[in-house]
Amino acid sequence: MTQIERLHSTGRMSRIVIHGDTIYLCGQVGNAESSVADQTRETLAKIEGLLAEAGSDKTKILQATIWLASMEDFAEMNAVWDNWVVPGTEPARACGEAALARPELKVEIIITAAR
Amino acid sequence: MTQIERLHSTGRMSRIVIHGDTIYLCGQVGNAESSVADQTRETLAKIEGLLAEAGSDKTKILQATIWLASMEDFAEMNAVWDNWVVPGTEPARACGEAALARPELKVEIIITAAR
Amino acid sequence: MTQIERLHSTGRMSRIVIHGDTIYLCGQVGNAESSVADQTRETLAKIEGLLAEAGSDKTKILQATIWLASMEDFAEMNAVWDNWVVPGTEPARACGEAALARPELKVEIIITAAR
Repeated sequence: MTQIERLHSTGRMSRIVIHGDTIYLCGQVGNAESSVADQTRETLAKIEGLLAEAGSDKTKILQATIWLASMEDFAEMNAVWDNWVVPGTEPARACGEAALARPELKVEIIITAAR
Repeated sequence: MTQIERLHSTGRMSRIVIHGDTIYLCGQVGNAESSVADQTRETLAKIEGLLAEAGSDKTKILQATIWLASMEDFAEMNAVWDNWVVPGTEPARACGEAALARPELKVEIIITAAR
Repeated sequence: MTQIERLHSTGRMSRIVIHGDTIYLCGQVGNAESSVADQTRETLAKIEGLLAEAGSDKTKILQATIWLASMEDFAEMNAVWDNWVVPGTEPARACGEAALARPELKVEIIITAAR
């Protein structure tokens, strides 16, 4: 059996789950008070921190699923995203609209990465 | 090539797909007549049954994606979820709002697990 | 470290990411002017093309996540899907409602497959 490691377990979820050389992060969000652009920046910064703890980084993201509370924020989120990804290492990505845990949350990003 | 096993194939989907030591379950739901708490319980019971058939169990879940028909049901779903997960083995998790296959369905959970 | 290969990188995402023998495709959509059935056909044809480039095919899909802009289109999408999957090789599947990148887009399908 491939080993499973978990980090930052909260009783509800683990922020990081590592299975062999695949890393699963729980859905990341920014601060409820922030703009869409800032929530995107905060979310991506959290993802970078978690990937670093897991022994990975943003150039090793395999798949990103992005949920926006409103698709009207698509361009504002993308402007931050497009600047953040490293050319030549872009992950597979999908983006759809979904209300999130609190109405003030505008962006949630779910990451699968390689170690 | 890593072997692929499928169980409970319906013509539309397979309830269990096993690829090497990674297990993918199709989205599970409860009974349309039940409360949110009961639909969550029924969904989690189905997941336990499918994981057992795949040679796994709830302590080996890697990632859970939860769709709620209404985010107003977040606390009611979480109360059942939090009692169900085994401390120290919590999966990565994301929860967003999505209408499901039938309006009476309130909770759907999509699982990736290790064998 | 397992190698990562990426194909069709756009600056925003890679249409294909291969990690070991697991393939992640970015969310595929059809043509905005088409009917739900035709968007489903176009999406599935794109998926077949990308899987072929990745050295795989539709009989090796592990997991499919389907987003419909309206769950009222569930039966119309399913009629095309059910004819497309090869009996005995059906993937794990989940289908929920999510508004997509443009209002004319009715179907998006996110694929994880084996090589």
